Amino acid sequence: IVVWDEEFFQGRRQEFTTECYDVRACGFQTLRSLKIESGAWAGFEHVGFQGQQFVLERGEYPRWEAWSGSHAYHMERMSSFRPIACANHRNSKMTIFEWENFLGRKGELSDDYPSLPAMGWGSSAVSSFHAHSGAWVCSQFPGYRGFQYILECDCHAGEYKHFREWGSHAQTSQVQSIRRIQQ
Amino acid sequence: IVVWDEEFFQGRRQEFTTECYDVRACGFQTLRSLKIESGAWAGFEHVGFQGQQFVLERGEYPRWEAWSGSHAYHMERMSSFRPIACANHRNSKMTIFEWENFLGRKGELSDDYPSLPAMGWGSSAVSSFHAHSGAWVCSQFPGYRGFQYILECDCHAGEYKHFREWGSHAQTSQVQSIRRIQQ
Repeated sequence: IVVWDEEFFQGRRQEFTTECYDVRACGFQTLRSLKIESGAWAGFEHVGFQGQQFVLERGEYPRWEAWSGSHAYHMERMSSFRPIACANHRNSKMTIFEWENFLGRKGELSDDYPSLPAMGWGSSAVSSFHAHSGAWVCSQFPGYRGFQYILECDCHAGEYKHFREWGSHAQTSQVQSIRRIQQ
Repeated sequence: IVVWDEEFFQGRRQEFTTECYDVRACGFQTLRSLKIESGAWAGFEHVGFQGQQFVLERGEYPRWEAWSGSHAYHMERMSSFRPIACANHRNSKMTIFEWENFLGRKGELSDDYPSLPAMGWGSSAVSSFHAHSGAWVCSQFPGYRGFQYILECDCHAGEYKHFREWGSHAQTSQVQSIRRIQQ
């Protein structure tokens, strides 16, 4: 990941090959543009991998608007980031549950789902997740829009029992699209 | 598609099963929330299916932010919409080209690609498209963020030779993610 403190890849530039707990420790106030040259990364609003989450796959992100994809609040801040360990796409597997604590109706996923309702999931919410393999991103609205939450088989043993465990900025269990994260 | 003139499914309500060329003709100033109950739809900023495009798959969209996914300009307007004819996911096929008029290096697509660079496409742009079957949405940034452009085998015979043919709001050929639209 290569980051800049100005939009459109201008200003102070630094390249990272591993996680950054706090960009201020590297002399940045915040990040305003970035390029992902290899792998998949998770960006976070706050230091210490807290707050709103941003999935960053290979490509160019010239402004905050390019990676946020959510209007719920507009902080223009990215303060920490880390790599995501992905599985091969064909091997990614996850179970979703209607209720908290892996209860209620369940669905087995091994593909990308821009609309869970269109795939027969009878609700606009998912209350718990078990990521068996790979890394996934679920989104509040259909078409991968709105708040994003990253789910990894390597974190929490892949178990997310309640929306408070998906990330510190989740306010509800509203989830209408889910896809695998691409290395 | 069910639409409301207030956010969160409040106010004047109307159900449609076919296209609407101009919501003002149905007594709406604009749409502020909507639910897709069946099929996939395309929403447009302006009347007559013009301006910024929004892919709408099954699910709930309580506010403008839920369907826009782009910050490039914030008009909070949807003035027309129409159904999209999708193919079965397994049968969707498209060819992308490095240069305008179907020239230069090409790539054959039959899956969803949250990052074209990660799949080996050596650029952050696609200059022309040929949609052989199905309906597709390409996006400006990785992870299906930023401006969206709808590409259908049933429109223009599936041929999009230049970014001016993808939609009246396209300013560049910057395209970093592409996926099939889900019925």
